[in-house]
Amino acid sequence: MKLVAYKYNGVATYGVLSGSQIIEADASMLARYPDIRAVLDAQALPELSASVAGKAATLALSDVELLPPVGNPRKIFCVGLNYKSHVAETKRPDAAHPAIFVRFADSLTADGAPMRFPGAKSAMFDYEGELAVVIGKTGNDIAEADAFDHIAGYACFNDGTVRDWQRHTHQWTPGKNFAGTGVFGPALVTADEIADITQSQLTTRLNGEIVQQAPISDLIFTLPVIIAYLSSFTTLYPGDIIATGTPGGVGDRRDPPAYMKAGDVVEVEISGIGHLRNTVHVI
Amino acid sequence: MKLVAYKYNGVATYGVLSGSQIIEADASMLARYPDIRAVLDAQALPELSASVAGKAATLALSDVELLPPVGNPRKIFCVGLNYKSHVAETKRPDAAHPAIFVRFADSLTADGAPMRFPGAKSAMFDYEGELAVVIGKTGNDIAEADAFDHIAGYACFNDGTVRDWQRHTHQWTPGKNFAGTGVFGPALVTADEIADITQSQLTTRLNGEIVQQAPISDLIFTLPVIIAYLSSFTTLYPGDIIATGTPGGVGDRRDPPAYMKAGDVVEVEISGIGHLRNTVHVI
Repeated sequence: MKLVAYKYNGVATYGVLSGSQIIEADASMLARYPDIRAVLDAQALPELSASVAGKAATLALSDVELLPPVGNPRKIFCVGLNYKSHVAETKRPDAAHPAIFVRFADSLTADGAPMRFPGAKSAMFDYEGELAVVIGKTGNDIAEADAFDHIAGYACFNDGTVRDWQRHTHQWTPGKNFAGTGVFGPALVTADEIADITQSQLTTRLNGEIVQQAPISDLIFTLPVIIAYLSSFTTLYPGDIIATGTPGGVGDRRDPPAYMKAGDVVEVEISGIGHLRNTVHVI
Repeated sequence: MKLVAYKYNGVATYGVLSGSQIIEADASMLARYPDIRAVLDAQALPELSASVAGKAATLALSDVELLPPVGNPRKIFCVGLNYKSHVAETKRPDAAHPAIFVRFADSLTADGAPMRFPGAKSAMFDYEGELAVVIGKTGNDIAEADAFDHIAGYACFNDGTVRDWQRHTHQWTPGKNFAGTGVFGPALVTADEIADITQSQLTTRLNGEIVQQAPISDLIFTLPVIIAYLSSFTTLYPGDIIATGTPGGVGDRRDPPAYMKAGDVVEVEISGIGHLRNTVHVI
């Protein structure tokens, strides 16, 4: 399934994509599970799947305002420096462990929403196309061999970064947490739909031009390694999001640097997973 | 008021300290505000105060199991390197901005609870005595002059740190997020009780010996500066916790280094605010 959360007639709800149409979750599902995190918490993906089976799509994707598929995760982890091409451009040494920083949920926004550039505070707003993993099952000390059992699904992520604020100190929190800078979606594609995520290709486009492109197989720390590592120091819960890192080609490391400006259109596409398209708005 | 959250007869609830006794929140308060964050969200401190006025204490503090006064904050910010004595011992240069890292709520524990040392994963478990500020009013871009209006109150914090995991990379998240390592409490002391927090003194003791001691006036980035800075890149909500940094004297920077071991008793005391006492348990 491709799960989408959205606002329709002012009400936040969710459903399942069928092409470019939406099969709405029915009243009994919504009563039990008010949002997609609640579905994941209850291990109710099979129930959701059964509830939409044979149902007709009743809404066009173009009629709704998409929301992040999980808007209320308990934890959002971001992995830094996880593609060789990006590590090389930052001129950092290889590391024995993934670099982990944190986003708060209110920094997230959805496919199609304005990507919010705090233009009064910075002139250095940058894209970072990434694969996002969504956790489906609670776990601590998850073995690498069991990691895929803990993945509910995948989505695209644009880890929009305010570079000068990222570098205020050695801790990156400020540059990664402005509201409306982390684009997540468009859908949560459940893991059963993806035979081998490492065969997917990530592409980021700025105003139509390809600026980042890499296969997921280029990840330095693989999904099992990341999940095992995170779960060795904190509990992973259903709905938790892991943004797995960005490949080379960020605007900040271009010569000369090329930051985003108002009106720019930035896209993140992952084959088999989806396509984010957002316009940069100065706020 | 000194607000405490606690478990009694297996039920999590809250009340107001009166010396070493507790005046329990009454049923009508609990129905409207199930926990202290809900009281803060609703700006209901005056209502809580009125509801306990003239009431008798019915429980001894020693009869309950304390919980973190806010156990479900939306955001926990930690400030690194915020006392000159600690910056000096880490041999880092002065910074123009506070270093901000994040804890998840499930890393918190309470006064009197075991402080959980992941002994199978590290031999470098360290204390960090700190002043914690709890936010009382939502805000963005809070002016320094208005910062104290956004403070609900204060508590003690022991930012227990797994040093080798903190240093796995330049991002400190892993070493700061093991469950049961961040001690918060014992009470949330509302701001109206504290005429001038900078006059308080912070003391950390390990097995009775003073290992850290500094006045809050030694903070490099003051509470108004921290609150203005944080709220310039993210929204601060009622119940959010800011651990404001630790003074010099951490075990890691002693010569030779002196980490905590099973059975050690670690205390953090802040004059006018309270006193944490925890025993280190290897888990």
